[in-house]
Amino acid sequence: MEKLLVIKIGGSVVDDADQLKVFLKSFAEIPHHKILIHGGGVIANQLCEKLAIPVKMIGGRRITDEATLDLVTMVYGGLINKQIVAKLQAFGCQSIGLTGADAGIIKAHRRPVDQIDYGYVGDIDEVSDFILSGFLQQGLTPVLASLSCTGDGQLLNINADTIASSVASAMSHRYQTSLVYVMDFPGVLQDVKDPSSVIAELNRQKIDLLSQQNIISKGMIPKLENGLRAKDSGVREVWITNAANGVVIDKGQKVQGTQLV
Amino acid sequence: MEKLLVIKIGGSVVDDADQLKVFLKSFAEIPHHKILIHGGGVIANQLCEKLAIPVKMIGGRRITDEATLDLVTMVYGGLINKQIVAKLQAFGCQSIGLTGADAGIIKAHRRPVDQIDYGYVGDIDEVSDFILSGFLQQGLTPVLASLSCTGDGQLLNINADTIASSVASAMSHRYQTSLVYVMDFPGVLQDVKDPSSVIAELNRQKIDLLSQQNIISKGMIPKLENGLRAKDSGVREVWITNAANGVVIDKGQKVQGTQLV
Repeated sequence: MEKLLVIKIGGSVVDDADQLKVFLKSFAEIPHHKILIHGGGVIANQLCEKLAIPVKMIGGRRITDEATLDLVTMVYGGLINKQIVAKLQAFGCQSIGLTGADAGIIKAHRRPVDQIDYGYVGDIDEVSDFILSGFLQQGLTPVLASLSCTGDGQLLNINADTIASSVASAMSHRYQTSLVYVMDFPGVLQDVKDPSSVIAELNRQKIDLLSQQNIISKGMIPKLENGLRAKDSGVREVWITNAANGVVIDKGQKVQGTQLV
Repeated sequence: MEKLLVIKIGGSVVDDADQLKVFLKSFAEIPHHKILIHGGGVIANQLCEKLAIPVKMIGGRRITDEATLDLVTMVYGGLINKQIVAKLQAFGCQSIGLTGADAGIIKAHRRPVDQIDYGYVGDIDEVSDFILSGFLQQGLTPVLASLSCTGDGQLLNINADTIASSVASAMSHRYQTSLVYVMDFPGVLQDVKDPSSVIAELNRQKIDLLSQQNIISKGMIPKLENGLRAKDSGVREVWITNAANGVVIDKGQKVQGTQLV
């Protein structure tokens, strides 16, 4: 099977143009198939502010009313996605910017209202490994913004970590797939104030334990859950690390970061 | 050769959600290959206003400073493009939303500053009929927003009429291609106040004559020039008409509209 690296970027690497450029240059040099997944938090929040759209978050997840949906469709699906695509083209990477709605890549439904109404937020039904694989075989590198739509044409905001996990899982049947979550820290930290305290390996048991001891923050749990789900469904390696380490996976160099095992 | 219909939509069919929906339903039913091209004037202008970005136009063309480029990237490449894609999916059309930057579909350069500095506005060097044809052969319907980028990664705003002409021209070597410019009127009018005064056929000579007599408006001239260029480079039929007529081309029904001959 051919190799595939699925990288989800978040944090300052998306929000800071200089950091993004450095990352994309390295990303473009990855010698095998790759898929990039992004949201775009701070830029969306800034535009919300300018347009006087209130930002509502519950448990790290954005509540997406109609105005917010339009805004994230503009910022994630338009501005950030196309800026990444244009930069990757300049670095010689034949990128194609997409959302889950395009070519029916991600089938999704609106999250049912239970205790919280997340608004136009979607949960994933299915990722088309057939369509994504078609792009890879054409020599294209998909850049996926964290959006999709329902079968009746309603756009939805979808958590980018979940998209990364679902894409990696679906592709693991066709490719030797590794999944990397890029964030600002070099891994999951034993002590959040000490960047050198990276926990090298985590499994479900250890995650539960560290979570009970409040060593792993609440915001990190969904990311780890997504990572574990990918691991369970056949993804070969799952890493949580920063931008610099995120692109050296599979190059045979030592990666600093947290590996889910 | 297989048939291909390239439709460029502008005017109220883009700006009015209800009109757009009616158009997209008919567009989805076109039984052969099709490509849709759009900009998105009024919505972009409204957002410019909300964000206090001044709208500058010269000769019907937008002057694109950095703030305006970000805005059109959001509105054309994000909001309008993905709304169209999601609606087409609901109508059973496997659409894929793209800009010229994606997959290197359109190579462009920034327009040199002569008397007017148009800012981040691009002129087209080349359209990849190979890439677009690859999508069509996969059963996908490209929806192209009027943007592209330079080889060094600078996004550019590109006139949607010109993209339509260049795409149709490039594709005419592989497909029996028809090009339709959809606008609010049912064709080029002999009397702008009388919608029934559609001029059935126009050639270069007649266009020059009517232009000298001020019967054809200045804003219409670039559209006609783009149409004539497409006709000259092998596009089988070029029409200027409204949304209702735009989708019946090739169905064997009588089309009301202006045909360039």
